[in-house]
Amino acid sequence: MSELRKDPVSGRWVIIAPERAKRPDLLTEKNLEKKDKSNCPFCPGKEHLTGASILELKNNNNWKVRVFANRLPALRVEGDIERKAEGLYDFISGIGAHEIIVETPDHGQETADMDSKDIEYIIKAYQSRVLDLYNDTRLRYVLIFKNFGTGAGAYLEHSHSQLIATPIIPQSLKSEYEHAMKYYLRKERCLFCDLLNQEIKDGKRVISENEGFVLYTPYASRLPFEMHILPKRHHHDFSAITTDEIKRLSSILKEALLRLKTALDTPSYNLILHSGPNRRASGIPGKWQTIAFDYHWHIEILPRLTHLAGFEWGSGLYINPSLPEDTAPYLRSLKI
Amino acid sequence: MSELRKDPVSGRWVIIAPERAKRPDLLTEKNLEKKDKSNCPFCPGKEHLTGASILELKNNNNWKVRVFANRLPALRVEGDIERKAEGLYDFISGIGAHEIIVETPDHGQETADMDSKDIEYIIKAYQSRVLDLYNDTRLRYVLIFKNFGTGAGAYLEHSHSQLIATPIIPQSLKSEYEHAMKYYLRKERCLFCDLLNQEIKDGKRVISENEGFVLYTPYASRLPFEMHILPKRHHHDFSAITTDEIKRLSSILKEALLRLKTALDTPSYNLILHSGPNRRASGIPGKWQTIAFDYHWHIEILPRLTHLAGFEWGSGLYINPSLPEDTAPYLRSLKI
Repeated sequence: MSELRKDPVSGRWVIIAPERAKRPDLLTEKNLEKKDKSNCPFCPGKEHLTGASILELKNNNNWKVRVFANRLPALRVEGDIERKAEGLYDFISGIGAHEIIVETPDHGQETADMDSKDIEYIIKAYQSRVLDLYNDTRLRYVLIFKNFGTGAGAYLEHSHSQLIATPIIPQSLKSEYEHAMKYYLRKERCLFCDLLNQEIKDGKRVISENEGFVLYTPYASRLPFEMHILPKRHHHDFSAITTDEIKRLSSILKEALLRLKTALDTPSYNLILHSGPNRRASGIPGKWQTIAFDYHWHIEILPRLTHLAGFEWGSGLYINPSLPEDTAPYLRSLKI
Repeated sequence: MSELRKDPVSGRWVIIAPERAKRPDLLTEKNLEKKDKSNCPFCPGKEHLTGASILELKNNNNWKVRVFANRLPALRVEGDIERKAEGLYDFISGIGAHEIIVETPDHGQETADMDSKDIEYIIKAYQSRVLDLYNDTRLRYVLIFKNFGTGAGAYLEHSHSQLIATPIIPQSLKSEYEHAMKYYLRKERCLFCDLLNQEIKDGKRVISENEGFVLYTPYASRLPFEMHILPKRHHHDFSAITTDEIKRLSSILKEALLRLKTALDTPSYNLILHSGPNRRASGIPGKWQTIAFDYHWHIEILPRLTHLAGFEWGSGLYINPSLPEDTAPYLRSLKI
């Protein structure tokens, strides 16, 4: 069984998941398996190769998006949650969820090439899973992410995202909540709303904008071609997204991924959804319940062009050889 | 010229260094250049291919370790430092230093295979450079690190480390200082000293120990085979290391790298030195001057076995498929 362990020096939680060592690529580098349709467990007709469906979003009786539990999960729903000290350290039993969201029945289709209409199914699946998992009061956060390409940690080719629901709030989120809270207390305004207004007014880092969202290269981009998507409506919780917003998000997300693909010839990337915590979680510190309102959910797209960001892990200092103000107009100029 | 930019959401500083885009491997993946001795700018006799020596530590008139400025530096010593707001964002001109520490005149020799005696020269060079750079009151931190192997971001094969001196304290260090400070305030004891005592008493994660240092796999290891080296003597600043401690550190560092090499067949790794800030820096917040005393310098060794830690960047949540309590006895058991 997995464990969550906290490092008292950095404040960082780590999931120790020995079961996942069974996945052959996790200890030594392997190339992405170019499975043909006949072997792919994510293809229609091969549903028996995975766990049972947790969710299927259908069109004409065929699923468009399918969600099931990861075969070698980092965290599991089953079992009792135990939180305890181990001397100086903190321990939580590996309770949570780890799900795979297959984004399309079409084996060869990547998100960048999907119709915006079809991407709506993916966003709806995210929303539906978050809403469902937030009923489990043991879970404090639902982390939705996508690894695309070997450089970003993808193992299977068939387009998919993942979610990991955790009994803790991950460190990066906590840090963002803190900054949002301090800003709100000082200014009585949302940090992200201010940032959105400044970016739109400046314009130089904006790649695209629609009624609901702005796509831009952040001022302090860690990586070349890093892109963020920020909703115009202030809300801490992604799962409060409306039907109209889902349409607009799908459209701008498709544009982001297609521009990235066009610019860099299908690079690997990670996509991470940052949202507020599960405020209904039992035992969640009061601070994190109320802080939620000061936060503003958003999406980060991190192209993984090189190995080179190695030492950043140990230092928190990032070196980016490209100017976000150069990247944005270049991405805007591409014919897609 | 480079810029330092701060992201107000995460609190993270990024060095935007467009000049470094000239390095051919920084935007797309390249394999490590297997340069033969005749082309290597780090070999004896080729000193004219690099900048002038900043430091040479010699034995019988031949340098053992040589330090010079990086040809495409992330930060430069020359120029005036400017700190200003750009709307919501924070900007500092790219003042600092970026140096290469060539660890051996022998082109084919990696640190793991060096004599412990020769590793002492490397540690002495680190110390000497930190002490010198701390005279520059514009610089608040000196980050010493090593990228070994392509998977860790190394570009040239000849064994070397790097240092980046910054006009800010990197985010990971700030976070560690904060945790150390809070602990000290609460307990009136050092967090790291307590951690050291607990690890030695437990023993199950200790790989090796000598009079001055402990080598262990951290309880909340982010990565398989992650190792830390902690000095037994409480001191916030690495550069206060004594001659005896340099000997002991060299010996345990050699052992760490050799065990890692033996276990995993010469894996890529990052080595990061974590130390207190430059307390003499002008304008350094008072908190970071005094906090230094609560801190305890140490070394982190991060093997880079896979690409797979992609999404951790965006979440701060790490998944490690190996148990540190399994890794330590395995590493201990290896014949080296």
